[in-house]
Amino acid sequence: MLSSAVVAFAFRLSPGADLKRELLAVARSRDWRAVAVLTCVGSLSAYCLRFAGKGEGVTRAGSFEIVSLVGTLSASAAHLHVGLADENGSMVGGHVLDGCVVRTTAELVVAELPALRFDRELEAATGYAELTIRPREG
Amino acid sequence: MLSSAVVAFAFRLSPGADLKRELLAVARSRDWRAVAVLTCVGSLSAYCLRFAGKGEGVTRAGSFEIVSLVGTLSASAAHLHVGLADENGSMVGGHVLDGCVVRTTAELVVAELPALRFDRELEAATGYAELTIRPREG
Amino acid sequence: MLSSAVVAFAFRLSPGADLKRELLAVARSRDWRAVAVLTCVGSLSAYCLRFAGKGEGVTRAGSFEIVSLVGTLSASAAHLHVGLADENGSMVGGHVLDGCVVRTTAELVVAELPALRFDRELEAATGYAELTIRPREG
Repeated sequence: MLSSAVVAFAFRLSPGADLKRELLAVARSRDWRAVAVLTCVGSLSAYCLRFAGKGEGVTRAGSFEIVSLVGTLSASAAHLHVGLADENGSMVGGHVLDGCVVRTTAELVVAELPALRFDRELEAATGYAELTIRPREG
Repeated sequence: MLSSAVVAFAFRLSPGADLKRELLAVARSRDWRAVAVLTCVGSLSAYCLRFAGKGEGVTRAGSFEIVSLVGTLSASAAHLHVGLADENGSMVGGHVLDGCVVRTTAELVVAELPALRFDRELEAATGYAELTIRPREG
Repeated sequence: MLSSAVVAFAFRLSPGADLKRELLAVARSRDWRAVAVLTCVGSLSAYCLRFAGKGEGVTRAGSFEIVSLVGTLSASAAHLHVGLADENGSMVGGHVLDGCVVRTTAELVVAELPALRFDRELEAATGYAELTIRPREG
């Protein structure tokens, strides 16, 4: 099992930003190789999520609080799941696709793991590009 | 984008503690300038949450597992969202207000970011006091 | 209040793995004394959760996205709560018991806190083995 020191990055996304695209744009601009989401607090005006075991995304507009954001990312890919709460507090969750739009803000703190690199490789058993974790050098 | 080393603090809130007030009391007593919630596992006997896009809080008593707590805080303010699961596993989520009361425990691990300072300034575009992220010195 | 540096560990659980048992097996093999979950993104094919205020677990099979995993662990015990979203995005959450089975993957990043040790001691007030946080040496 591989370990690393941690460097935290804190930043805020503005209204209208696409959550996943923006995170990947930041990752590419900084050439991040291995990052984990530590916390994200904010809101969305629309979501596009792939629900468990489904092939396509579901889109809905409204007001949603971001109650949870988990995931790993690098400059080449992001794997993010989100939990959202609506105007009645009811929750929906799933796999984040393009189309999750920031409503008022999204405050993010992420952990870069400088000793590691995250890549994704197609795995026959699951049909998905699954995470590989390697030392950054070597 | 600003980065920082991380110092982790681990502590536990006791039955009856108010989640947000207690976190702010800890932040003030330690003069924290930039902190992110890493994990919180515990339970509540009552919540007071502001749901998405609403102005007022909703209060409810019961037994709730804390399934997610995300957010940022400093000695002057906290921005926290929580996801709670009830006696049937049903979930509710929203913006944490005063009135979220610990039932059995709340185990918290938070990350202090010593290179940064978090402040909040009223933003006309959203009507909320939004997060600003600055170097701690400078 | 006790603080610590942070060492991050990244790893992946494979299809069929039991989430809690596997985490405890890793913790024992590495002799972890104080660890916090930072992020977990993946899916389950079955869950066994204890809902808030209940004594027994509830088991259900299906397809679930892991939307949140919070908790603390050491080689001797783990306290984990999870939020799951089903094929319709509906969410369920609770206290993780044995029987939460990984469906496609579970990508985990956890924080070891080398200055601390987490233990659990029965607390009369709650009836649960509650977290104690001590310096690792001393």
